[in-house]
Amino acid sequence: MDFIAKNVAELAPSMTLSITSQAKALKKQGVDVLSFGAGEPDFNTPNFIVQAAIKALNDGQTRYTESAGLLELREAIAAKFLIDNGLQYEPSQISVNCGAKHSCYNAILAVVNPGEEVIIPAPYWTSYPEMVKLAGGVPVVVETKAENGWKMTPEEFENSISPMTKMVIINSPGNPTGSVYTKEELEKIAEIAVGEGIVILSDEIYEKLVYGENKHVSIASLGRDVYDQTITINGFSKAYAMTGWRLGYTAAPKKIAEAIDNLQSHTTSNPTTFAQYGAIAALQGDQQIVADMRDEFDVRRQYMLSRLSGIKNVKVVEPQGAFYFLVNVEPIGIKSVNFCEKLLSKQKVAAVPGVAFGAEYTVRFSYATGLDVINAGMDRFEEFCHQH
Amino acid sequence: MDFIAKNVAELAPSMTLSITSQAKALKKQGVDVLSFGAGEPDFNTPNFIVQAAIKALNDGQTRYTESAGLLELREAIAAKFLIDNGLQYEPSQISVNCGAKHSCYNAILAVVNPGEEVIIPAPYWTSYPEMVKLAGGVPVVVETKAENGWKMTPEEFENSISPMTKMVIINSPGNPTGSVYTKEELEKIAEIAVGEGIVILSDEIYEKLVYGENKHVSIASLGRDVYDQTITINGFSKAYAMTGWRLGYTAAPKKIAEAIDNLQSHTTSNPTTFAQYGAIAALQGDQQIVADMRDEFDVRRQYMLSRLSGIKNVKVVEPQGAFYFLVNVEPIGIKSVNFCEKLLSKQKVAAVPGVAFGAEYTVRFSYATGLDVINAGMDRFEEFCHQH
Repeated sequence: MDFIAKNVAELAPSMTLSITSQAKALKKQGVDVLSFGAGEPDFNTPNFIVQAAIKALNDGQTRYTESAGLLELREAIAAKFLIDNGLQYEPSQISVNCGAKHSCYNAILAVVNPGEEVIIPAPYWTSYPEMVKLAGGVPVVVETKAENGWKMTPEEFENSISPMTKMVIINSPGNPTGSVYTKEELEKIAEIAVGEGIVILSDEIYEKLVYGENKHVSIASLGRDVYDQTITINGFSKAYAMTGWRLGYTAAPKKIAEAIDNLQSHTTSNPTTFAQYGAIAALQGDQQIVADMRDEFDVRRQYMLSRLSGIKNVKVVEPQGAFYFLVNVEPIGIKSVNFCEKLLSKQKVAAVPGVAFGAEYTVRFSYATGLDVINAGMDRFEEFCHQH
Repeated sequence: MDFIAKNVAELAPSMTLSITSQAKALKKQGVDVLSFGAGEPDFNTPNFIVQAAIKALNDGQTRYTESAGLLELREAIAAKFLIDNGLQYEPSQISVNCGAKHSCYNAILAVVNPGEEVIIPAPYWTSYPEMVKLAGGVPVVVETKAENGWKMTPEEFENSISPMTKMVIINSPGNPTGSVYTKEELEKIAEIAVGEGIVILSDEIYEKLVYGENKHVSIASLGRDVYDQTITINGFSKAYAMTGWRLGYTAAPKKIAEAIDNLQSHTTSNPTTFAQYGAIAALQGDQQIVADMRDEFDVRRQYMLSRLSGIKNVKVVEPQGAFYFLVNVEPIGIKSVNFCEKLLSKQKVAAVPGVAFGAEYTVRFSYATGLDVINAGMDRFEEFCHQH
């Protein structure tokens, strides 16, 4: 007897985390691994944020807060939504969670009943389908096309709807594709979702990382109707290099917000108290640091695009946001897990197999790493591709 | 349409947290409230623990760790289990979570299938039945008796078992009763659980707070059989005054540990990174601080017992552990929610209604507060009881 609950036993291990730790283990052994696996900025958390958490620790801010998080933090988040996204949320509509991953999980659990369907455009972030299954829901994966910039078209969305559809997940800017939905595209998706009474989970964790002419649009800002059935998710990890702080948040219509708060009060309570003070500082401090990190990511993105474009047998769509390339390696004809294992063992390059994102014969490279690593890594990757 | 998932819509709000925030709100208005609601030590986190977290922040420890937590922390926890509890766990069997509440939730989710039953002795900690329902399971509440020290007898346990029983929850020392199971009592429970193939969730978060001749015993230490089907839960909140740090942990047989780790990797990832360094310091530092806090709690416990024993119309069982009194107010004949509302509005004393713990006509008083507050609060409570 191993006692494990069925839906937990059936979970796929998180491959993004697993490749990162494999690469770390090799590095510890002294192997010169170049890692493109990480889903976290390589920058340090800006110092004024660190100092705010240190001040909170010194001030004895080490006790419980309200389970949805400090009122002062939720007020700062509400102000951010108004200024950045044209979205009006009361602090009572906001719940601060243990990372945006936790925010997504809480949001799905609060809405999805066993047997209900959740539409997930693929390539998708690896944990969405697993979270839906944990809620007893059914992930309905919609294959998007590279020629559409890996974005779900209104037709594809409509064709995937059934009477059991409860939710659709939109992740723009997207991991692993870097795709950014335009306002017009979101308007069409919003119209369909409103017409069908489908809740939208809008995961906007990469909001601050958009490049070129692209602009981030919050789908909930497109009208009262869509606002009333959207859960907007964001956090501090990617914009402020605060992955280890574990702070994300949901903003939702009052009833859903209450459900999320209640759920959180019985399952985790508040996120770490003194970390919340760092988050207040992040939102209230000079936002130039965010733009500076974005600019640095953009330099890497452009360099990596130029390198990948020159490698035979691979294809890329130029990412418009986030910090990943999803590279199509289909012409090489090796399945993605096998591909990544060979790439790691032969060339000591760590990347994440696309099958983790529902995209076989692709590989995800993160450019949340220095230009020197990107340069050397692309040399090795090019050599690998030429040999296969 | 409010879109809420049925099992989340049916959650009871966490009454322990709700009374605490009602009392806080009154205090903010300048009202002289004496609060006995809190489930957290009133001591500050010891300074050497705070300094370890500050050092980690200054050292840039702000990124992801392994989703089960830092290896160094899991090694320190393994050492603690061996020294304190005679329990041998590998670091790979340990998962560090966002508070022991989260540990309980992960453990229940990892084991309980929809429709399976979980035996919960009442009075119980308020979130257990809600967690079981979130997993789709069925809480089977076993009423324990004051004359048995609020402990479940082997007969009561056996009589509550059905073919659907998957788990039993043992919380010793217990919240809200302060009851501590003896080794002999645990041996009988273990024998039954092993015989029936029932997983034991042993929530030992109050381990360090036992008084008089009582000794804490980990049920998993009673033999290989019971070890193989027990999930041991502990954390830092109560022993080290680290509630706001949100750090708990599970230790389990390998298969269950893997399931918990996998579950966590898809739902929250690791708890806050720099907080984990504080936890390492807590375990490796001088444990005299823990004994000192315990001694202070004991002084309060004895004083409060003497006061409560002198109040007419109420009955108490002397608590052997934790930091609560569960006071029987049945002779007064007011249901617990109503009782606590009147007590707060008339006497400005905040306590938690027993119905939150499955024990109507009782009220929980926490003594995680200063002797001056206890003295004045008991005066007011006595007056209230005499008037009713």
